[in-house]
Amino acid sequence: MRTQIAIIGSGPSGLLLGQLLTEAGIDNVIIDRVNKDYILGRVRAGVLEEGTVGLLDQAKAGTRLHAEGLPHDGFSLAFDGRDHRIDLHELTGGRRVTVYGQTEVTRDLMERREASGSLSIYDAVDVAPHDFDGHSPFVTYVKDGVAKRIDCDFIAGCDGFHGVSRKAVPERAIRSFEKVYPFGWLGVLADVAPVSHELIYANHPRGFALCSMRSATRSRYYIQCALDEKIENWSDDRFWDELRRRLPVHHAEALPTAPSFEKSIAPLRSFVAEPMRFGRLFLVGDAAHIVPPTGAKGLNLAASDVHYLFSGLIEHYREGSDGGIDAYSQKALARVWKAVRFSWWMTTMMHRFPDTGDFDQKIQEAELDYLTHSRAASTALAENYVGLPF
Amino acid sequence: MRTQIAIIGSGPSGLLLGQLLTEAGIDNVIIDRVNKDYILGRVRAGVLEEGTVGLLDQAKAGTRLHAEGLPHDGFSLAFDGRDHRIDLHELTGGRRVTVYGQTEVTRDLMERREASGSLSIYDAVDVAPHDFDGHSPFVTYVKDGVAKRIDCDFIAGCDGFHGVSRKAVPERAIRSFEKVYPFGWLGVLADVAPVSHELIYANHPRGFALCSMRSATRSRYYIQCALDEKIENWSDDRFWDELRRRLPVHHAEALPTAPSFEKSIAPLRSFVAEPMRFGRLFLVGDAAHIVPPTGAKGLNLAASDVHYLFSGLIEHYREGSDGGIDAYSQKALARVWKAVRFSWWMTTMMHRFPDTGDFDQKIQEAELDYLTHSRAASTALAENYVGLPF
Repeated sequence: MRTQIAIIGSGPSGLLLGQLLTEAGIDNVIIDRVNKDYILGRVRAGVLEEGTVGLLDQAKAGTRLHAEGLPHDGFSLAFDGRDHRIDLHELTGGRRVTVYGQTEVTRDLMERREASGSLSIYDAVDVAPHDFDGHSPFVTYVKDGVAKRIDCDFIAGCDGFHGVSRKAVPERAIRSFEKVYPFGWLGVLADVAPVSHELIYANHPRGFALCSMRSATRSRYYIQCALDEKIENWSDDRFWDELRRRLPVHHAEALPTAPSFEKSIAPLRSFVAEPMRFGRLFLVGDAAHIVPPTGAKGLNLAASDVHYLFSGLIEHYREGSDGGIDAYSQKALARVWKAVRFSWWMTTMMHRFPDTGDFDQKIQEAELDYLTHSRAASTALAENYVGLPF
Repeated sequence: MRTQIAIIGSGPSGLLLGQLLTEAGIDNVIIDRVNKDYILGRVRAGVLEEGTVGLLDQAKAGTRLHAEGLPHDGFSLAFDGRDHRIDLHELTGGRRVTVYGQTEVTRDLMERREASGSLSIYDAVDVAPHDFDGHSPFVTYVKDGVAKRIDCDFIAGCDGFHGVSRKAVPERAIRSFEKVYPFGWLGVLADVAPVSHELIYANHPRGFALCSMRSATRSRYYIQCALDEKIENWSDDRFWDELRRRLPVHHAEALPTAPSFEKSIAPLRSFVAEPMRFGRLFLVGDAAHIVPPTGAKGLNLAASDVHYLFSGLIEHYREGSDGGIDAYSQKALARVWKAVRFSWWMTTMMHRFPDTGDFDQKIQEAELDYLTHSRAASTALAENYVGLPF
């Protein structure tokens, strides 16, 4: 088989790139090692920047997002027993974010892909990119016991942190930067109205807490926990009790609860691989970088990578220029590091670290106090939260 | 002897408070354990906020400052081989700082005090505040072998981090917060034109460097060094070489050098004691808090403490209200923590820590890059640097 762009990975970045290419008339095939149901079974948050929404519209996958997504004009920072609203809309001159689950984004893109007739190959075994250093790259895999090969012009590695794309690059050609945080997030999903119609990020001496939601009737809550915490030690009652302790009293007293239907512990990591291009292979999204979920930048960063790569490919096919492709890594990484810094900063400011002492706790509170009372500092937070320009 | 306000310590905070009181017709006596020459022999930086300059004017000690002080409308952040100007004047709507040595401030205040006829007692041994929990506080000391006592309404503890005032408070009544940084500053004074007419704060993988000045012909340079560094291992040549390595090439190549006439290593510390009032004893400036010199907040913070205390005392004597005195600790500490946070942040962002890894170095550069390219972030830096309002 032959295509123009072989895309490894059918998560949101691979699907978004694929549909942008399809809409632009550029042939592409998506190959994934698992199947649709597995992918749609992953529970992920979703706070979408306007740039991400714009790309989903461009991919003709924005209809349900606009009907069902929740526009948020602000969020709360809670500390020292009170909460303080960050008015994103006012501080950024009218911008906002949209709360819409990543799973829903994936589902919408998959449906659009099926409608457009572009090919996705699921349950592919032993997927591997080849010869991307030369002019004739290809991807091999095994499907139903039969070895297959797709020849292409370029390969997009959209297969996440643990995927084969980055691992196919010789170690000497790649430099990686990493920080593993000494705590995790214990998350709960429950069909109950959220405690507030906007997100609440809480800094508390007992640890960070986040109140978020998927819809008006489905809530997502997180509390910071030790990395070696066991999920079986956390009954729903214990979770709600601990969450209440970390919230300002008026929220704690009003917190509606219900039995959880998902409960899990996730580690927090910052990771960046440089560069993001190796000949005719491009790394996109989590394949090249991971951010902790504080600040909700992961999916949006994947979308901005897609934007830069798509622009470069359009330039290549329509104008015969490789300028955009050659600049991909540098452009993408410049924005990646800004979001990595922001996510690291939010994480550092909001969490209690094992070595957080009295001084550090006071500094966190002083920072939050300054942040919520200085228009300049609030604006800096807001412009990052709604998303820096592409 | 009897006075209204007994001031322990003849550094800039004690002298400033004393002269404000004298100008307002409130009787005061300053007691110091050392003499004038010793105090004037201390080498200290001086970047004065407008609020500090205003207080010096109010104390009638601003004449030479206005004639000889250097108004600075901006400074540079140097990293990744380039420098980036922070335009304080433009970002803060016309505010600026004044470079004028702390030693000069002290000298001007001393001269003004002598002219005004207010009493300063130097070379006082065993200075101690007493009975500040009751209504009749007093200060004892020994002068020329004779025990003395000054009765007063209030005692101002302006005697620095190592002074007796804070130590006179029972340990159980005070809570302290501290961070000791794992490096020092190696500083050099030389009679040579500064490399730039504005300050340069440099972040470099080899460590922090600061180019500052006292005048157009006297320069003050610092480089971050290990805490156990020995001054005798640092020849002038070695210092200039190391400084050059940490500066952008165009500065390094243009750096004028001369033999140093002062060379010393200073540790860096953040420290805050809470509260700042104990009955009729008030802690002021370094007696209550220390900041690392990055960001130049120490003297300015002492000045804002003086402002709050002076206002409270005026209210007490003129209006018979203790509202200002009762609010002193809370008002002063609110501003103290903002400056402690700013100084900690500048220090953390600009220095290489023993555990700074590749990721942390990239984060510092990403933060500096964001800071110098976002108007909101630059404004937040600038508004802190020129000084938050009293």
